[in-house]
Amino acid sequence: MKTLTLGILGGGQLGRMSALAAANLGIAVHIFTPEHNSPASQVSSQTTVAPYNDETALKKFAQSVDIITYEFENIPVDTIRFLKTLTPVYPDEKLLEVSQDRVIEKIFLNEINIETTRWKNYQSDQSILDAFQEWKSSATIIKTTRFGYDGKGQVKVNKHDNINETVRLLNGDKIIEDIVDFTCEISMICARDHEGNIITYGPMLNEHKNHILHLTTVPAGISQKHVHQADKMIRKIAQKIDLKGVLTLELFLTKDGRLLANEIAPRTHNSGHWSMNACLYSQFDNHIRAVCGFPVMDPQRHSDAKMLNLIGEDILDIDRHMKKSGAYLHIYGKSEIREGRKMGHINFISPKTSPTAS
Amino acid sequence: MKTLTLGILGGGQLGRMSALAAANLGIAVHIFTPEHNSPASQVSSQTTVAPYNDETALKKFAQSVDIITYEFENIPVDTIRFLKTLTPVYPDEKLLEVSQDRVIEKIFLNEINIETTRWKNYQSDQSILDAFQEWKSSATIIKTTRFGYDGKGQVKVNKHDNINETVRLLNGDKIIEDIVDFTCEISMICARDHEGNIITYGPMLNEHKNHILHLTTVPAGISQKHVHQADKMIRKIAQKIDLKGVLTLELFLTKDGRLLANEIAPRTHNSGHWSMNACLYSQFDNHIRAVCGFPVMDPQRHSDAKMLNLIGEDILDIDRHMKKSGAYLHIYGKSEIREGRKMGHINFISPKTSPTAS
Repeated sequence: MKTLTLGILGGGQLGRMSALAAANLGIAVHIFTPEHNSPASQVSSQTTVAPYNDETALKKFAQSVDIITYEFENIPVDTIRFLKTLTPVYPDEKLLEVSQDRVIEKIFLNEINIETTRWKNYQSDQSILDAFQEWKSSATIIKTTRFGYDGKGQVKVNKHDNINETVRLLNGDKIIEDIVDFTCEISMICARDHEGNIITYGPMLNEHKNHILHLTTVPAGISQKHVHQADKMIRKIAQKIDLKGVLTLELFLTKDGRLLANEIAPRTHNSGHWSMNACLYSQFDNHIRAVCGFPVMDPQRHSDAKMLNLIGEDILDIDRHMKKSGAYLHIYGKSEIREGRKMGHINFISPKTSPTAS
Repeated sequence: MKTLTLGILGGGQLGRMSALAAANLGIAVHIFTPEHNSPASQVSSQTTVAPYNDETALKKFAQSVDIITYEFENIPVDTIRFLKTLTPVYPDEKLLEVSQDRVIEKIFLNEINIETTRWKNYQSDQSILDAFQEWKSSATIIKTTRFGYDGKGQVKVNKHDNINETVRLLNGDKIIEDIVDFTCEISMICARDHEGNIITYGPMLNEHKNHILHLTTVPAGISQKHVHQADKMIRKIAQKIDLKGVLTLELFLTKDGRLLANEIAPRTHNSGHWSMNACLYSQFDNHIRAVCGFPVMDPQRHSDAKMLNLIGEDILDIDRHMKKSGAYLHIYGKSEIREGRKMGHINFISPKTSPTAS
């Protein structure tokens, strides 16, 4: 019996949890990562440790696996293009290109009539002054167009700041975004298989601390109208991009009742970790199914859930959670604790109260 | 942050699923098995391939891990005794000794007032003739006292058979057991932690095909009286043996309403695989917790379940199950299909209908 082997680019916790889901289906996993003793390699049968531009290592890796996917968005598009000539890669680089660059992302979303925050290309500091005037606002957010995450690569600029000094904190191309007056932040996750079937998770209600996801709640407790609207938005994105895999959409629900798309992640997402214990099929199960050519499955949520991230030294305090009824711990096997580092999460599970989210 | 490392003796599917549960808690796993490319080693960070009597390899293994457990009962007791001098082993060899030998097992059960089928030591063929007379029966089952499983190591002897010829099919010490007129076969699983807390799964209703478990149903659909009686029995065994880990009790429910203990397994069990998708904490989660010194948790069953084993070539027919709503597949990564070999299982999950079983 031929065992299917899946190659995963990236060795972090998303790769680890995907590898564990693959193991349930008897799929062997080969991790490609520049990092030694990565969380994902600890639970996979094979690992290649090499940089993402090492063509010799990439070639050998591609030849050893049947299908390739990636666990995070900061993989060079050229790496995907190179691998694709040897072995199928899902999702393909189109999704990666859109989600790696905030300007391309906003253009894509606006072109398919998905509303985003107001934004402008940054060309010089004058662009910021134009934004203040145009949007009648006294502050904006300046973000790098690439490689930002968890609040890194962004600064707030007030009208009376020394604009030049503030903007110089950011390297590379920049985008100017309007500050949104939002009620809450939500997210949706979807998986789409090779036949075009789509299933969705959420909406999830997300609360951040120091720009890092702190708590996710399902169901989100928002109106049915917004639930349907968010679901429609992510399905549209998945179809337009011909997704084969998983993507996540982060949204703002504004005080005047609009849903604004904030960001696309071309992958499983921290705000979907609750699905590991509250659904029959988790986001990782459907990720594996979608990329490996199997049908995606309705998640079949059986419980309500709250997901609490364990950041940095939070992980030292897990003993009390080990005894809590309804608390299921996931720890990522990272030996070094660093400030702001995601070390694990806890899913707090309770009986299903509402059919709001699937 | 120090990572806990668990050593597991045995590399089969029970070791694999235990290793996956350990991974959720960030525990690293080191597998010790005589088998190359075993199901468990595919998902573990380290493997030692060596026979169970290789003291040099065992010593190195023991020194590389914090705690040791085993995934099946046919580990030599001497191996456990040797390892224990170096590193804690849970459950300890007392449980192994009881469950490795059908005579010791029956004596232990009867001594703590747990009813079993009637049995006799086999000394010569005359013992069988005595049994026929004593039990007023025309047939009995002769079993080897050790190493039997899935119907191997047992024969039925009828009064008019050539007894000597039939019995000679079995090697080694033997036990004579009465044939039980049962309504159904059930099982219970329990986990007991270092503090003495016990949680249980079941009773499960088990149906066999060719002496191999075919289908397990939860809840079992038996009376509350029998549910409580089975629960009491397994708790008594766990306490008497000072269990630190998981054990399984197989029982017969007789036509006249008695519960007879049939067999103890010193480990997680095929009839508990449904818990992976119908409970918050599976039997593997509680196995890891119990042996690693963490508290065991009430399973919190949220769904009803049927578990179907995939035996031998059943595994070639999984595509249709991949699309079935409510069907969750577990495949063990065994490359070679053999007749009677357990290749995987499917959990069919449905909404919880009755509080009968926990």
